[in-house]
Amino acid sequence: MTTTTIAKDRVLIFDTTLRDGEQSPGATMTHDEKLEIATLLDEMGVDIIEAGFPIASEGDFEAVSDIAKASKNAVICGLSRANFKDIDRCWDAVKHARQPRIHTFIGTSPSHREITKLDMDEMIQRIHDTVTHARNLCDDVQWSAMDAIRTERDYLCRVVECAIKAGAGTINIPDTVGYTLPDESAAIIRMLVEKVPGADGVIFATHCHNDLGMATANSLAAVAAGVRQIECTINGLGERAGNTALEEVVMALRVRRDLMPYQTNIDTTKIMNLSRRVSQVSGFPVQFNKAIVGKNAFLHESGIHQDGVLKNVETFEIMRPADIGITETNIAMGKHSGRAALRSKLSDLGFDLADNQLNDVFVRFKALADRKKEIYDEDLVALMADSAANTDTDFLQVKWLRVICGSEGQSAELKLLVDGVEHHADTSGDGPVDAAFRAVDQIYPHKARLQLYQVHAVTEGTDAQATVSVRMEEEGRIVTGSAADTDTILASVKAYVGALNRLRVRREKTAPDADMKKVSFKL
Amino acid sequence: MTTTTIAKDRVLIFDTTLRDGEQSPGATMTHDEKLEIATLLDEMGVDIIEAGFPIASEGDFEAVSDIAKASKNAVICGLSRANFKDIDRCWDAVKHARQPRIHTFIGTSPSHREITKLDMDEMIQRIHDTVTHARNLCDDVQWSAMDAIRTERDYLCRVVECAIKAGAGTINIPDTVGYTLPDESAAIIRMLVEKVPGADGVIFATHCHNDLGMATANSLAAVAAGVRQIECTINGLGERAGNTALEEVVMALRVRRDLMPYQTNIDTTKIMNLSRRVSQVSGFPVQFNKAIVGKNAFLHESGIHQDGVLKNVETFEIMRPADIGITETNIAMGKHSGRAALRSKLSDLGFDLADNQLNDVFVRFKALADRKKEIYDEDLVALMADSAANTDTDFLQVKWLRVICGSEGQSAELKLLVDGVEHHADTSGDGPVDAAFRAVDQIYPHKARLQLYQVHAVTEGTDAQATVSVRMEEEGRIVTGSAADTDTILASVKAYVGALNRLRVRREKTAPDADMKKVSFKL
Repeated sequence: MTTTTIAKDRVLIFDTTLRDGEQSPGATMTHDEKLEIATLLDEMGVDIIEAGFPIASEGDFEAVSDIAKASKNAVICGLSRANFKDIDRCWDAVKHARQPRIHTFIGTSPSHREITKLDMDEMIQRIHDTVTHARNLCDDVQWSAMDAIRTERDYLCRVVECAIKAGAGTINIPDTVGYTLPDESAAIIRMLVEKVPGADGVIFATHCHNDLGMATANSLAAVAAGVRQIECTINGLGERAGNTALEEVVMALRVRRDLMPYQTNIDTTKIMNLSRRVSQVSGFPVQFNKAIVGKNAFLHESGIHQDGVLKNVETFEIMRPADIGITETNIAMGKHSGRAALRSKLSDLGFDLADNQLNDVFVRFKALADRKKEIYDEDLVALMADSAANTDTDFLQVKWLRVICGSEGQSAELKLLVDGVEHHADTSGDGPVDAAFRAVDQIYPHKARLQLYQVHAVTEGTDAQATVSVRMEEEGRIVTGSAADTDTILASVKAYVGALNRLRVRREKTAPDADMKKVSFKL
Repeated sequence: MTTTTIAKDRVLIFDTTLRDGEQSPGATMTHDEKLEIATLLDEMGVDIIEAGFPIASEGDFEAVSDIAKASKNAVICGLSRANFKDIDRCWDAVKHARQPRIHTFIGTSPSHREITKLDMDEMIQRIHDTVTHARNLCDDVQWSAMDAIRTERDYLCRVVECAIKAGAGTINIPDTVGYTLPDESAAIIRMLVEKVPGADGVIFATHCHNDLGMATANSLAAVAAGVRQIECTINGLGERAGNTALEEVVMALRVRRDLMPYQTNIDTTKIMNLSRRVSQVSGFPVQFNKAIVGKNAFLHESGIHQDGVLKNVETFEIMRPADIGITETNIAMGKHSGRAALRSKLSDLGFDLADNQLNDVFVRFKALADRKKEIYDEDLVALMADSAANTDTDFLQVKWLRVICGSEGQSAELKLLVDGVEHHADTSGDGPVDAAFRAVDQIYPHKARLQLYQVHAVTEGTDAQATVSVRMEEEGRIVTGSAADTDTILASVKAYVGALNRLRVRREKTAPDADMKKVSFKL
């Protein structure tokens, strides 16, 4: 993918939900979840999917490899630091893709040079060697100057020139600490485009963080200055205040094409579904007033303000809910809906199931429909998430639970299958959740610490399903478990047990490359 | 407050959490909550507090009056449409302040002119008459051109000139639909400053919405072009995607004073506490990756990335947690802490209590300390919120609750005081929350619909308190109830009952001015 292959007004969307997003504390996704998200991104029209950091762990390597194998249209990219071992490992993972890309980076600002103990000239040499090495493996190489915004301007020109000469086709200028302003973001790109020999033969990329709330504006200012690749994540997922939100840059380009005459390849009607799935698998809720994908983004206060909307739809609405895939009414199914109707509805929601999967989901659907009159789209999405997260082959499985709570105290009685063998516990605790979790701990002692517990009502109404996510930490390993049920406490225990199952899997995996602990790798 | 009284590099912060923020569907606050937030805003150094829309309802009028009476340093401002009745009512509320301001507005864009059925000249006349009227009542008048960004540029100059001539000292240029881009935002301000006679004698204000995720950048671009008042809300609370977030513009001006040499009067160490309180009373959670005030805003992935932070604190951090009032360790108290220690700790957290209030809180604190080993700052904040939201003078009060749930079904037994009389119910339901809510409904039938149910764990650990918020709607009235307890289900029922108490109060209040239904008033 070089500049000659894309139109001048075309902006490439580079999604890093699975790399920079997944790197957020607690947002760890399973292998299957990563594959599912990658498929959805590919179908939505994302140009480049950064699928992971292959050398970080066996799990990352396998995820990138499998995403590469499954990819259809998107370029599949892996991240690597500035050394041959990282780059080789990255290539081994991405090479299975129809369009593979190696992305290599080094921190070029004074504080990062200090960390790597390279002086300016040594770093130039390192960039030359590593980009050349990557280019010998792969035609499509992206190079990033980590902390570019805080790199001396003259030196930034030098490193970019070196990377271009060594064969990088995409040059990324990240605002690693979320520090820049639109004018500064644009000025740096303009400088590079004007001053660096060979700049007209590459694509410049922008990668912003939202620490000061300006990632979207900074990315778009960079586009106006010459950038043609925006790096972003769904829901702005990412460390600290997160990355540029894909939904914001894409919709801003669409709504304000009068001032920003650029095109992306994104099918915006798939945004809402992807937002929901990423929120579910990461366990990161989207706030009500989040731009584009928040629950309230298209809501108006009743009465007064709606009147203006009715009188003239353009008075207050610059986008329509349907533009991002929110349908007018979403009552999906009831207890009399059959297997074919369920399959068709799930397919509309982006889930294409094999027959055996459908059977399992149908049983769960019927059980839910017995308890809940109206089954909404959101209920089905929660059901799918639950059935992906908790299966009957898990090491730990909740067999039976009874919890008593209220103003006179709380107790729990639990039957838990551990590797197929039934165990029983009877405990009390501070609150129904604490009592039930203690019952799990009594049967299956562990050292993990509960970092986060959250409950979402899936739909309105008192009989709504609850989706519970728990985040647990053990010796630096952080996992998330989730489950859905109309019984909040039962969902809580299933999520807790789900997290413990995941921790067990994580423990058994190879430890991260020891070297990883020594070098910072945040873009 | 005129331009002559402030330094050229001083940017005024105009907070509209209590007006534009509170207007968000579901964010309705009680009278006491509004007073508390206003006091905190005043103490934080906000220059102008927009306290409400006095003609909208009796409740709004009383809130603005009482905030005006209690104000210390801040200008207290009320909103009014472009008619004498609105303006008179606004003045009657704000006149009690040491520094009152009347804020009047009209929609100047083509679609808003159509709604008000005024042609360009008629609208000019209306602006002249209403601003003159306001100015006869109050020295400090602010005028806003609703939907300014979509108003014809020449006409925008004409209306602004008219408002200045009629005596408005502050001219606000709102991006009502959250539509603009930084360059456009700056260009409009520059045009007004250059072209409009009298522009050098007034303060220009910017009021942005975040529909495309650019409210912060648009506000700061307007400042660079000549604006000296930023209108914003805590947590970016507001309709749809919300308003400009106070914490983002204030911290961006602080962190990037190298490029934006402007000063605000905000004590940034009070930001975190205000963010928490606004989130609690509005029932709007703050997402983990929200800039500045999100849980993760200062968090780094363990291991790898922390290493960079340790090596050089500036490598990844552009702000320190202490800058916004996050303290290193916040283990506050245990079961042996006394009354004086509790008072002192609560005072640190921004709660100054009278003796009788302290007695009530101390009893609740001891009860919590019996169940929970470590009491964190967040626990005390939740406790304070709970004791403000649910008191023993409420019409409905939970006397006793017992819920059974788990894999074999859910049932609830409840004793509820209705106006002091004890009633009993025994119900089953779909999930423990549904069963318990049905018990409430059986005793106290109502037509309100549950719109939203949410649970937050206040701290880490399985014995954490849960804060539950419920949002209910009845005939267009939307209320939020909240409660905290280590027993999630008990907290849920208390929150549900709290919402029903609020609905009862709302029902008894005067209905909104009938005229309000006919005119849109969103800035």
